[in-house]
Amino acid sequence: MAYEELTIEGRNAVIEAFRAGKTVDKLFVLEGCKDGPIQTVLREAKKQDTIVNFVKKERLDQMSETGKHQGVIAHIAAYEYSTVEEIMQRAADKGEAPFLILLDGIEDPHNLGSIIRTANQAGAHGVIIPKRRAVGLTATVAKASAGAIHYTPVAKVTNLVKTMEELKKQGMWFVCGDMSGESMYSLDLTGPMGVVIGNEGEGVSRLVRENCDFIASIPMKGDIDSLNASVAMGILSYEIVRQRLQK
Amino acid sequence: MAYEELTIEGRNAVIEAFRAGKTVDKLFVLEGCKDGPIQTVLREAKKQDTIVNFVKKERLDQMSETGKHQGVIAHIAAYEYSTVEEIMQRAADKGEAPFLILLDGIEDPHNLGSIIRTANQAGAHGVIIPKRRAVGLTATVAKASAGAIHYTPVAKVTNLVKTMEELKKQGMWFVCGDMSGESMYSLDLTGPMGVVIGNEGEGVSRLVRENCDFIASIPMKGDIDSLNASVAMGILSYEIVRQRLQK
Repeated sequence: MAYEELTIEGRNAVIEAFRAGKTVDKLFVLEGCKDGPIQTVLREAKKQDTIVNFVKKERLDQMSETGKHQGVIAHIAAYEYSTVEEIMQRAADKGEAPFLILLDGIEDPHNLGSIIRTANQAGAHGVIIPKRRAVGLTATVAKASAGAIHYTPVAKVTNLVKTMEELKKQGMWFVCGDMSGESMYSLDLTGPMGVVIGNEGEGVSRLVRENCDFIASIPMKGDIDSLNASVAMGILSYEIVRQRLQK
Repeated sequence: MAYEELTIEGRNAVIEAFRAGKTVDKLFVLEGCKDGPIQTVLREAKKQDTIVNFVKKERLDQMSETGKHQGVIAHIAAYEYSTVEEIMQRAADKGEAPFLILLDGIEDPHNLGSIIRTANQAGAHGVIIPKRRAVGLTATVAKASAGAIHYTPVAKVTNLVKTMEELKKQGMWFVCGDMSGESMYSLDLTGPMGVVIGNEGEGVSRLVRENCDFIASIPMKGDIDSLNASVAMGILSYEIVRQRLQK
C-alpha cells in the first residue's frame, strides 16, 4: 500500500481545498498577515472549525516544499474522517455494546497508527481524536496502522470532554488508564465502554480524567515511569476483550 | 538522557575495540579482502562469536561517516549485554518464577526499545535476543526503552533454539504468540515462563515454534493480519502478569 502525504501551499490552493470539502488537519498562517485572501482562508477555517496556527515567516519557509507558500500552508488529511454518530451506528449495526477508543492528544504518528491497528484487532468500533495538539490521519499513521485505517473509522472532535458528556447520555461509560487508579483486573469493564488513552508525555488531562467513570491502572512492577502509549492501549483494550469473552 | 550511537571505522580502531572487550553488534568487512589486519579482525570476531557481514565497497562507502573505513566498519553496542545465567540468577535472587522475553529476530529498534520498557514494567527478569538478523542495543533502542535498558538486562545468544533447550532442562516453559495457537486466556501460563515474540514480518520461525510448549493466540476480531510486535508482546506478557496475580 502506498500512502501519500498531502501538503497544500499558497492562498488559492488552500481556499480551493477548503471549498472542495477536504479536511484540513493543520493550518499554518503567517503572523500579522491580514489581506483579503488570507481573510478568506481564515473564514473557511472557522466554518470547518479548523485550528489555525499563526507562525513566523521563517517557520513557513522551512515547511514549504515549493518555496511559494504566500503566507499559508495546509496539511490535508490523507484519509477520510468518520463521525462519532457513524461509529456508534457501527456498534448498533453489529448488535454489540459500543467499544470506543478516545485519544487525549497522541502526538506520535507511529503510536496513532499502532493504536488504530490494535483497535481493529480488539474489535473496537472506532477511534476518536481531538483536533487540538494531536496528530491527524497522515501517511505515516496509515502505514503504521498496517491497513487498519481502511477498516476502523476515526472521528475528529473539537472538544473531547463535550463528546464524552454527550456519549454518557447515550449510556456510555469511560475508563482511562492512569497509574493513580484501581487495578484494571478488579474493575468490571464489560459495559458500553470508551477507553481513554493520554498523551505520551503528560498522560490524561485533568478535565478528561474527571469525566471518566473508572480510572484503571495497569500493574507496574518496573523501575521506570510508564508504558509506551500504544502498548498501554493494547493491554487495557485486551482486558476489555477478555472480560467480554468471559462474561 | 542522551544516547550516543557508536560506529567504529578502520582496521586498528576495530581491532582495538575487540581487544578492549567491547561487544560488536554488527561487523561489516570488504568482500574478498584478505590481508593481515583484516585476518586479525576476523580472528577477533570469531573469538567473540560475532556475525561477519561481507559487503561490497559501495556499501561500506555509503555507511562510512569518516570516509576512511579501510575495508572494515563495526557497530558497537551502546549498552552492556548481560548473560542468560545472570538473568536466571536475577529471578532466583528475587525468589520469583523466572519470566523471560525471547525475541526471534525483532528488527525495528523502536519495537525492541518498547519491548524492553514493557518487560521492565511487567516484571520480566530479562530479555534474550539472537545475534543474527536482529537489532542490537543501539542508541535508538535505549531511547525507545525510556530508560528501562538501565534496569532490565538483555542477553544476546548465538542460537535461540539451543538456549531454549538448555533452559528447558532448568524447568522453563516457553510460549509463543502465533495466530494458529489456542486462546491465551485458556492456557495456564503461571509457571517459569519464556515468552517468544516473532519477527515483525514473518512471525516466529518454524524451529523456534516447534520448541515452544504452548502456542498462544491473542483473539483477533479485525480485518487485518496481525498486531504490532511490541503491542502483541505487551498483551501476552500482561496475560501472564494477570494469571500470576490471580494464582
